[in-house]
Amino acid sequence: MEKKILLTDCPDAKGLIAKITNICYKHQLNITKNDEFVDRQQGRFFMRTALEGNFNDITLLEDLDMALPEGAERRLVASGRKRLVLMVTREPHCLGDILMKCYSGALDVEIAAVIGNHPDLGGLVEKFDIPFHCLPADGLEREQHEERVTALVDGYQPDYLVLAKYMRVLTPAFVTHYRGRIINIHHSFLPAFIGARPYQQAFARGVKMIGATAHFVTNDLDEGPIIEQDIIHVDHAYSADAMATAGRDVEKLVLSRALQLVLEERVFIHGNKTVVFK
Amino acid sequence: MEKKILLTDCPDAKGLIAKITNICYKHQLNITKNDEFVDRQQGRFFMRTALEGNFNDITLLEDLDMALPEGAERRLVASGRKRLVLMVTREPHCLGDILMKCYSGALDVEIAAVIGNHPDLGGLVEKFDIPFHCLPADGLEREQHEERVTALVDGYQPDYLVLAKYMRVLTPAFVTHYRGRIINIHHSFLPAFIGARPYQQAFARGVKMIGATAHFVTNDLDEGPIIEQDIIHVDHAYSADAMATAGRDVEKLVLSRALQLVLEERVFIHGNKTVVFK
Amino acid sequence: MEKKILLTDCPDAKGLIAKITNICYKHQLNITKNDEFVDRQQGRFFMRTALEGNFNDITLLEDLDMALPEGAERRLVASGRKRLVLMVTREPHCLGDILMKCYSGALDVEIAAVIGNHPDLGGLVEKFDIPFHCLPADGLEREQHEERVTALVDGYQPDYLVLAKYMRVLTPAFVTHYRGRIINIHHSFLPAFIGARPYQQAFARGVKMIGATAHFVTNDLDEGPIIEQDIIHVDHAYSADAMATAGRDVEKLVLSRALQLVLEERVFIHGNKTVVFK
Amino acid sequence: MEKKILLTDCPDAKGLIAKITNICYKHQLNITKNDEFVDRQQGRFFMRTALEGNFNDITLLEDLDMALPEGAERRLVASGRKRLVLMVTREPHCLGDILMKCYSGALDVEIAAVIGNHPDLGGLVEKFDIPFHCLPADGLEREQHEERVTALVDGYQPDYLVLAKYMRVLTPAFVTHYRGRIINIHHSFLPAFIGARPYQQAFARGVKMIGATAHFVTNDLDEGPIIEQDIIHVDHAYSADAMATAGRDVEKLVLSRALQLVLEERVFIHGNKTVVFK
Repeated sequence: MEKKILLTDCPDAKGLIAKITNICYKHQLNITKNDEFVDRQQGRFFMRTALEGNFNDITLLEDLDMALPEGAERRLVASGRKRLVLMVTREPHCLGDILMKCYSGALDVEIAAVIGNHPDLGGLVEKFDIPFHCLPADGLEREQHEERVTALVDGYQPDYLVLAKYMRVLTPAFVTHYRGRIINIHHSFLPAFIGARPYQQAFARGVKMIGATAHFVTNDLDEGPIIEQDIIHVDHAYSADAMATAGRDVEKLVLSRALQLVLEERVFIHGNKTVVFK
Repeated sequence: MEKKILLTDCPDAKGLIAKITNICYKHQLNITKNDEFVDRQQGRFFMRTALEGNFNDITLLEDLDMALPEGAERRLVASGRKRLVLMVTREPHCLGDILMKCYSGALDVEIAAVIGNHPDLGGLVEKFDIPFHCLPADGLEREQHEERVTALVDGYQPDYLVLAKYMRVLTPAFVTHYRGRIINIHHSFLPAFIGARPYQQAFARGVKMIGATAHFVTNDLDEGPIIEQDIIHVDHAYSADAMATAGRDVEKLVLSRALQLVLEERVFIHGNKTVVFK
Repeated sequence: MEKKILLTDCPDAKGLIAKITNICYKHQLNITKNDEFVDRQQGRFFMRTALEGNFNDITLLEDLDMALPEGAERRLVASGRKRLVLMVTREPHCLGDILMKCYSGALDVEIAAVIGNHPDLGGLVEKFDIPFHCLPADGLEREQHEERVTALVDGYQPDYLVLAKYMRVLTPAFVTHYRGRIINIHHSFLPAFIGARPYQQAFARGVKMIGATAHFVTNDLDEGPIIEQDIIHVDHAYSADAMATAGRDVEKLVLSRALQLVLEERVFIHGNKTVVFK
Repeated sequence: MEKKILLTDCPDAKGLIAKITNICYKHQLNITKNDEFVDRQQGRFFMRTALEGNFNDITLLEDLDMALPEGAERRLVASGRKRLVLMVTREPHCLGDILMKCYSGALDVEIAAVIGNHPDLGGLVEKFDIPFHCLPADGLEREQHEERVTALVDGYQPDYLVLAKYMRVLTPAFVTHYRGRIINIHHSFLPAFIGARPYQQAFARGVKMIGATAHFVTNDLDEGPIIEQDIIHVDHAYSADAMATAGRDVEKLVLSRALQLVLEERVFIHGNKTVVFK
């Protein structure tokens, strides 16, 4: 018996749940978990259906296409392992957490490679027998550097590109190339402290909590659809550095929670937002 | 256009979502929110379907009864206001929070009456033009006292009885009489610190967090199905009294969140557990 | 035996804790709790000393003034009840929580009066036998309206002015008049969503948590020293209205926690930040 | 200029802060952070004083011994790196988090060795060039096994022994040998779910949150002084296994937070409780 996930994202209409679940029933597929959401303001319907049984993908999708309104997107995803490429700079905490979770099986994913614009994290990556590529940006135009990155990434054909504290801004061309497939961890509770040095900003403002945000990357820097956020409490005794140190635990937790949600096909991108079925 | 909630609780079977949503579709009812859960270990299916449209309750329920497996329970609940009777002793924080939330409309419910075994909270209740009845237990057998309480409560025909820091143990007869309809707030993260004086116990144990638990009352004291729990952090500087003071905010939050969940028909009792669709 | 709190805020220097605690010891005062913090970047020392014993305020302060460096501020505060004036508009949740906490003794403070720019909350306030004054702003210049407010407030000589969802912007003159004594609750995790309609902004941005911030009011709108912040998690299913509803519980908790901290003399204003000894 | 931490734990008396800080001042030591707590019920005083300057340890301690009441314990700790031995069984998440934090410098400690009663985690440990010793217990009496463990541990002279999911019960002799130096992570919010299989117990009880507790090990199983606790929320959809999976992130966070507190000399053991200066 196989397990697949059916993802439906379409204009809202009456009877959608009935139509979709009927088709599943007709195909003798068992629904083990079903989540739906209607954005009534925008008239859009989202449904995630976890299925078990013997699949005839072609006829199932044909039946769905007949039943769903125009403008529908639907995907039937086998529950196999996905493949990631990670991009990093110098900070090991998010990378290390992902490596460890893959090693232990807590995160069921293949890390095809790690690319750094600095060599610092090569030693850590290689401990886990994963290829590490150092592509320094020094002396290169941004576009030149990204061309090399793209060539390398595309060779691995990853499902997602994860920016695990990759401290460079990406060009629109790069972002468009991996549209909807780049996940970033931002070290603030966006949209507070947009831009550079958020912990310094947080310190200067005297906030009592600091946060982290995992989001899809779009061309608007720090404006992409938010997947997951969390915070920790701090007080007057935290310097900007102490905030950064304390923030690392929440950054890594938020990134790995977001990754897990994405890998389990629980996240729909919906304009500049997400629909996340936990 | 009316709004109702359909609650289904039945043995698991293939195609249940399809069958139920089809019937809704056939009745031209729009599903605004659908949640389901299958307890696969026990083979039990739970579904909460929020519906909009013009209802013919009788035929809808007939259609459902035809479709659902034997042993099914289903309820179609109009989304009107429910009626509560609150029971209290001396502490005002939970009572006060509920009174204020009803006053402001944050909790959409009618408080039919408040019953205290001490007179202390009468003044507060009467500010809100709600009947307060003092039924002291002094000199009475437990059964005698509860007879008086029952007589009074039954006169109000409440949907739920809320023990808002009612500091007396109830007899099995009383609990059975209001089976599945009594909600209690317990001042610990059950099942830790079962029994009397949980803050004193928490202090003695030197815990670093204290909690509160809202649950349905059953004959096993402190063992009823848990609806909602939360905690706050404390440290060595908290005396047992300071823990109790700090705990009041979490108690009142947990109780009012649990109440809201129950009033919105989001809670199924499932053996000694609950299924809660948030 | 009396209890007082000594608050010291002065340029940092060696031996300050020794000097201050020695003076207390010489005066045979028992230190029940001592907290200190040094902002090393700015070279400023903060200390809160809770004392018990028989006080000779004059000689104690003289001794301190001899010992402390130039530019020191020190206050010896008797632990009596403080007096508040609350300012409100239409929303009852923060007001209601404070009223209830005063009624129950959870917040040990006198509410001298409540001033609303709308009449809506008069009924609630009067239940608690507290004067309510409605001062509508319609047809008045901002300055004219504030003159009336000031006249009324000053008659009550409050220690603090609490903006419990008072939805009007204050002029610099007003803020200066009550410098360091106005506490506001802002319905976002500042500095995110500065300005009007923060829940609408939060909804539009698709955030996964919403927050509240209690702060002292300064002339820079939403830029005053933060006392306390907290958040709750939300998801895609929350409309802007649902976020606002959910946010009310965190708003009232954050405001009443901040109030308690201020009333217990645990908060120093330090530039645009606070030092808070919890 | 050196940094040291002075830890004082003595019967309460008047003027202790003054006496201790005076001695520091006399020695021209700068206090960078001072925390104190008085357990008034038991009449015990605790103080942690972070000092900077040029230390004459012998005269400083002599001066203190003259000033402190009988029964005082005081330690002057240089802020050097401490040495740990970790003990594990099969689960890698706590071990992995500690290894990674040491690797990245987030936890400033030397891991002298890791001892497993199963070989499973050897590969992981050796990636980090740390000795791994497998000491299986099969076929051995508990005492025999512990003798071998003790011999090995004592060879490394660790400051603390960390049970990072070591799934064996220790004998009183072993615990006594490392009295106050064994730190354990327990996978529940103690004292709920004492004993075996806490996630199974939590599932059976239908709780809405699960937790983790880091504590010193004493002879009363699961009854040692609690250092740190935290929880995460779960719901009806979590199986016992899903609870365990979700619990791993909170287990590793709680253990590494507790370790950091202990390594920074912020934790006093006080009977069956702790005093923790955060």
